[in-house]
Amino acid sequence: MDIATRVWNHKWRIDPIVRSLIDTDFYKLLMCQSVFRNKPDTQVTFSLINRSKHVPLADLIDEGELREQLDHIRSLSLSRGESTWLRGNTFYGKRQMFRPDFMEWFENLRLPPYHLERVGDQYELTFEGSWPEVMLWEIPALAVLMELRGRAVLNELGRFELQVLYARAMTKLWEKIERLRDLEGLRLADFGTRRRHSFLWQDWCVQAMLEGLGEAFVGTSNCLIAKNRDVEAIGTNAHELPMVYAALAPDDLALRHAPYEVLADWHEEHDGNLRIILPDTYGTQGFLDEAPDWLAGWTGIRIDSGDPATGAETAIRWWQERGEDPTEKLVIFSDGLDVEKIIELHNRFAGRVRVSFGWGTLLTNDFRGLVPGDALAPFSLVCKAVSADGRATVKLSDNPEKAMGPEDEVARYKRVFGVGAQDRIAVEV
Amino acid sequence: MDIATRVWNHKWRIDPIVRSLIDTDFYKLLMCQSVFRNKPDTQVTFSLINRSKHVPLADLIDEGELREQLDHIRSLSLSRGESTWLRGNTFYGKRQMFRPDFMEWFENLRLPPYHLERVGDQYELTFEGSWPEVMLWEIPALAVLMELRGRAVLNELGRFELQVLYARAMTKLWEKIERLRDLEGLRLADFGTRRRHSFLWQDWCVQAMLEGLGEAFVGTSNCLIAKNRDVEAIGTNAHELPMVYAALAPDDLALRHAPYEVLADWHEEHDGNLRIILPDTYGTQGFLDEAPDWLAGWTGIRIDSGDPATGAETAIRWWQERGEDPTEKLVIFSDGLDVEKIIELHNRFAGRVRVSFGWGTLLTNDFRGLVPGDALAPFSLVCKAVSADGRATVKLSDNPEKAMGPEDEVARYKRVFGVGAQDRIAVEV
Repeated sequence: MDIATRVWNHKWRIDPIVRSLIDTDFYKLLMCQSVFRNKPDTQVTFSLINRSKHVPLADLIDEGELREQLDHIRSLSLSRGESTWLRGNTFYGKRQMFRPDFMEWFENLRLPPYHLERVGDQYELTFEGSWPEVMLWEIPALAVLMELRGRAVLNELGRFELQVLYARAMTKLWEKIERLRDLEGLRLADFGTRRRHSFLWQDWCVQAMLEGLGEAFVGTSNCLIAKNRDVEAIGTNAHELPMVYAALAPDDLALRHAPYEVLADWHEEHDGNLRIILPDTYGTQGFLDEAPDWLAGWTGIRIDSGDPATGAETAIRWWQERGEDPTEKLVIFSDGLDVEKIIELHNRFAGRVRVSFGWGTLLTNDFRGLVPGDALAPFSLVCKAVSADGRATVKLSDNPEKAMGPEDEVARYKRVFGVGAQDRIAVEV
Repeated sequence: MDIATRVWNHKWRIDPIVRSLIDTDFYKLLMCQSVFRNKPDTQVTFSLINRSKHVPLADLIDEGELREQLDHIRSLSLSRGESTWLRGNTFYGKRQMFRPDFMEWFENLRLPPYHLERVGDQYELTFEGSWPEVMLWEIPALAVLMELRGRAVLNELGRFELQVLYARAMTKLWEKIERLRDLEGLRLADFGTRRRHSFLWQDWCVQAMLEGLGEAFVGTSNCLIAKNRDVEAIGTNAHELPMVYAALAPDDLALRHAPYEVLADWHEEHDGNLRIILPDTYGTQGFLDEAPDWLAGWTGIRIDSGDPATGAETAIRWWQERGEDPTEKLVIFSDGLDVEKIIELHNRFAGRVRVSFGWGTLLTNDFRGLVPGDALAPFSLVCKAVSADGRATVKLSDNPEKAMGPEDEVARYKRVFGVGAQDRIAVEV
């Protein structure tokens, strides 16, 4: 290594985990633009939720280090090259996906303050402010916590133990890639930013998939990596849109229409492969039963909770009932995937629908079994909108383990959306 | 990477495999000094012998590339730092192991010409000249052939396949190290230069052992790595001494005494842990039976062929017969070792003698099972003195698979040294 590089590296007071505002998921930027246009003044609170209570984040992660990382993120602004890429690149076949007014706002953005408090062995980490600003905290906050927890474990290892750890993780991923190679017509994207082991590791995973899967690897949700590695940025929309729209609804009738209102706004802005329904926020079956006919004309559906095969069969039946041809529809699986499940779902649905996979945590953070006590195993950490304009948000999902919100509101939503008994499915990642 | 480094790297016409005259085994230098003093004018021929005929070296390795590598070795001379290290360092607790007259000669040395010819799917590679010069070809010639064969296979792999290959090899070695860690009182050295996968890989192996085994790792036979990593350089003497001394013997009586003559010369020069008997050149049992009493006073014995446990038991009995205490003697196992055998031998002999291991090919070149067709599996390549002053050399060993020499001479040696039937043991590496 040359001396200048070495000196430069030592100049960093910390080793920043998130070094760019576009080190985030592409759908965040799409949603942010939509919110910026449709609900710019909504005041929201996002909050960290560790579903894996057995992982004592506040014992593992030093509060000072966490603050340094979060403060560093607040110092970031869009670089000229990043702005040029967002303004000039083609996303989903479309030029100028991001409009000049949004880009001007984004170029001037700094992330708003955070509130951090230790409560028992967990951290309470919340972000409050206007929706388009606060929502951009979600992905970097999760990435920081996941990586700091990893670093705490890695600090205990020797230099060669570290080399061997990564050697094993590489071997593990490559063996997965070798199995996926055999799947005819596979389409798979990296959705692993939020719960990745580290940025460098996610970047390695993307490059390995590029070489190992070729055409079957369709892109990454991570904008920075998509830009640097010249691959497609992938993603559409997430639960936060219907959750906030629903929270803002003044009465039960408006509540029942809120999820469709979200997609009506989206329908105006996007077409083609960006018209993907995320139906499970308040129960997939009810959502589809009540859906307006124009939604059946959308390109596809993303299955993000519940039993994925059941979800896909439900979607196929719904399209058939609405007179649509399922073989022309896209089903994107994105919940808790690993190789076995990808192979099983691909074999079951390829040909019946167009199948695609958004592979997340077990792509970019499968360090299970690689250190004593499994201290690097991924866990279920989320950062969600918990209130909007002072009203609590609710999520039901197709799996009660993923539900959230105050008890009375959950009961109200269940009644309004006609959600009955649901199967519990353990949430690991 | 900085631009200067990149430009520098591109300046190399080839990627040299051996870049230093001390990228060789320590015992070569010890023996070279002994030969330089005792038999400087002996004319010898060394020749490459591929015992693994199924590996078609001449099909795998381009002749032009082989010549470039060998020519590069002929361009090498001792650097000032290397000379300073050899002159000033303490080896086996002794200062000035290498005498000024030898060092002056070594500083002016360039390796003599080689003769290379393709015969069928093998190469005939021979070196002729004065013994102290020619003998220094053995290790670099073997390292070049092993690494060029490896490169031929690696050329077919993609960038990430390569990363994963090394990830797997690292994992494999580390798992070996983790098993060896549990052995109380283990003493183990790297003897893997000649059949290593590559220089960088051997260097990695040494560093991994340093971190993983700590005190149990006593050093490396490779002088360059010993110097760079500041570990002990390890080694004493090899079969070439008795083989050449024996070839020079004018009659059967002189022949019978030749192996002892070698050790008498050695006895004058060295003491302590450098007084290690290598008894198997013409059969261990006969050698020990006929040995003069002063040899029983030597520090230890190296077991390099035949069944290692049998060899060690033979040595223990011999020491007892000669009134020596075996618990004070050193037994060095150095033939075809891998973890299983190391554990087995350690458990059997620790406490009965002082045990040490010289771990070679399966330390620095265990790429078995890592590429299709096992094309990187190590194989049995040697480079031996085949004649001295025009007379053929002979080796019998304790394993007829390792014997060499003209048939009639082998018969004569067997008669002179009283070697009867021997067990055949497959030679894999």
